[in-house]
Formats: sequence, structure tokens, C-alpha cells
Amino acid sequence: MSFITQPMAIEKRSMEIIAPYLENLDISPEAVKVFSRIIHAAGDPAYSEVIDIHPEAIRAGCQALYSGCHIYTDVEMVRTGINRRRLAEFGGEVHCLIADAEVAAVAKREGITRSMAAMRAFGDRLDGAVVAIGNAPTALFEVLELIQHSGIRPALIVGVPVGFVGAAESKALLAETSPVPYITVKGTKGGSPIAAATVNALLYMQDQGRYDG
Amino acid sequence: MSFITQPMAIEKRSMEIIAPYLENLDISPEAVKVFSRIIHAAGDPAYSEVIDIHPEAIRAGCQALYSGCHIYTDVEMVRTGINRRRLAEFGGEVHCLIADAEVAAVAKREGITRSMAAMRAFGDRLDGAVVAIGNAPTALFEVLELIQHSGIRPALIVGVPVGFVGAAESKALLAETSPVPYITVKGTKGGSPIAAATVNALLYMQDQGRYDG
Repeated sequence: MSFITQPMAIEKRSMEIIAPYLENLDISPEAVKVFSRIIHAAGDPAYSEVIDIHPEAIRAGCQALYSGCHIYTDVEMVRTGINRRRLAEFGGEVHCLIADAEVAAVAKREGITRSMAAMRAFGDRLDGAVVAIGNAPTALFEVLELIQHSGIRPALIVGVPVGFVGAAESKALLAETSPVPYITVKGTKGGSPIAAATVNALLYMQDQGRYDG
Repeated sequence: MSFITQPMAIEKRSMEIIAPYLENLDISPEAVKVFSRIIHAAGDPAYSEVIDIHPEAIRAGCQALYSGCHIYTDVEMVRTGINRRRLAEFGGEVHCLIADAEVAAVAKREGITRSMAAMRAFGDRLDGAVVAIGNAPTALFEVLELIQHSGIRPALIVGVPVGFVGAAESKALLAETSPVPYITVKGTKGGSPIAAATVNALLYMQDQGRYDG
């Protein structure tokens, strides 16, 4: 059995296969790159129908990331999926508190999810940062509450929690009410690879060496 | 905005919503649990049409895991997604070599992917173990080669690499030629959360305290 084994050749060929699914969409070349990475990560072209990118999201996200902003995630899988080496070149780091003992204690005491308690614990640090939520609708609801009841303004919210309980609702609320730019996916789909792929698309946006579109 | 914030209540409600999608499938109660966890992880009921479980897979996988076998993954995201605390209760650990310096050197020297080199480096350790591949078709091809050219026999292969270059082909080859039980997903879909959800479904199969179906 012969197959392509060279990583960059695999990525390039994958993006070529995805391109036709996007050619009739009325989106910017930068948005095409985000769509492509998400479809690549999910193996699912149907994502082209549900991705929703706020008009200022890519510009705001890239500006913040290239200036060294930090990224705050709900779960370790999102943190793991983000290209942290690339992020570090700009000065940023990825933070996740889901496994933090104090966060776990607060969650247990208050009967809330750990990812929700984690977002509350980040608090002011979310200001000017990129928030990437790939798993927990409760984390996204919490971030929207923090924004509403404080002066905290993330530079970008990548909000793609997954599932059948609250995910679609949390993402609809994000799109309808967020005063800051966002990238989301309508409905029940989403997940950690989608969140990581979205952030990585922004990190690779100006990388000419990388096949990014 | 009111929403459910209690983790086990969220999981229970999610499984209740997924159940109707599976009620007309001719699959065992144990397979229903695997299907449910995958659909839960992807937020995508269409997975019910593409999941393929070898008749011996669940029994063989559970027997190995409950006996303390180790799990070998292609990427860190799969490792991160597996419930390692639960696995440790049986005596097992999850191993991933994608970030190993020696593996990276071999991959670079031979012009292959790091996950492929990682599987080769695991070698004999895959015998009797659970292999969980969520990202790289090349890793799955490599495991099938190792099995064909050696006496290595994993207890179970969870092979759900994702994407448009080799993923569908590697999974078809798994289903057609594997001499050991497997769980896979036909076509381009798959990914780390799918691999982790499949393993976790097996880990929770005998956990009466956990809502697992």
C-alpha cells in the first residue's frame, strides 16, 4: 500500500481537496483559511454551512496574537491542540485551569462545572486575550456573564463548545449578544480540535512557509 | 439565562437526547454505549451511520483494559482526552511518543510523519495493548504493517484518523485486513475526541455510578 508520508505534502493535498467546497462561499481569503483548517480538523465539509465569523474577528484575533496576547481555554485538549511553539514566537502562552485543585474545590462547593469555575478564576486576565472554548457550553455562558457584568473585553472569543445540552444555545447567545468579535459554529457540532484549528489558522495566517489556505 | 451546570446532569441529559437516534439500529447494548459517547463527543448524530465495531472489539477491549493493559496513542490530544484516572484504577497508562526527540529525529531522517515513527518506536509494546489513533492515517497504516510483518497483536485497535488524505483508505484497510478486533468510523470523519470517547466508553462500561448509556 503506498501513501503520502511527508507531513507538509499531506497538509497541502488536504487543503487542495477542501478548496472546491468553499469556492462558492462569499467569504474573505482569510476566512477561507479558517474554514479550511476547521474542515481539515473535522474531516467534515458540512462545517462550511455552520461556521460564523464576526467581521472583525480575524483582524482582532491576529492583532492580539501577533502582539503576544495569551490564550485561555476551557479544557486541556484545546490547549494541547494549539501550536504553542508558534504562539511562543509571538510571546503568548496557553492557559487552562480545569485540573487546578482550587478550581475543582470551587466547582464542587458551588455545584457548577470545573470549566465554568476555571473561567471565573481567570477573571480580569481574559481582558485583551483570546478565549478558546471547545468543550463546555457552561464555560462560554460564564465568559458572556463576565463580559456583561464587568469591564472585561477579550480581543476574540473562539466559542465552539460541542453537544446537545446548552452548546447550540450558548453559541447563539455569543453571536447575538457578544460585544467582542467571535468565531463560532452554529448547532451541536464543535469540539476541541475545532477550537484549536481556528486558533492555529490565525497563528499561521502570516506564515508564508506554511501551506495555509 | 438559566442552564444546567451540574456535570453529571449534563451528561445524563445529553445521553437521553442521543438515545432516539440509535433506537432503530441493530446493535448490542454495549455498542449503544460506544455510539452514544462518540455522538456526544462530536455533537453529530450522523456518526451513527459510519461507526463500525468488530463483533469481538468491545469484549476484547474491555478485557484488556480491565486487566491493566496500556494504551498507545498517535497524538497528545488523544492521550489528554482519555480518562487516565479511571484507567489507572485498572493499572494502565497512556503513552504517546509524538513529542519524543528521538522519534522526531527518525521521522525527519526518513521523511515520514512523527506519528508513524512513534508507532514504529512502540514496536513490541503494542502486543496485547489498546492502540488508539485519532489523527494520523500514517500511524494506522504503520500499525497494520507492524501486525502484518511481525507477531505483534494488539488486543484492540481504535482507529479513527481524520481527514481527506489517507484517512478513509487507512480505515477501510483496517476493517478489511486487521487480524485483531477494531473500532473505526468509515470515511473522512474521526479525530482525537472520537478516539478518546471510544476508549472512555469501554472504561465506563462497568461503572454503575456513571451514566454510561
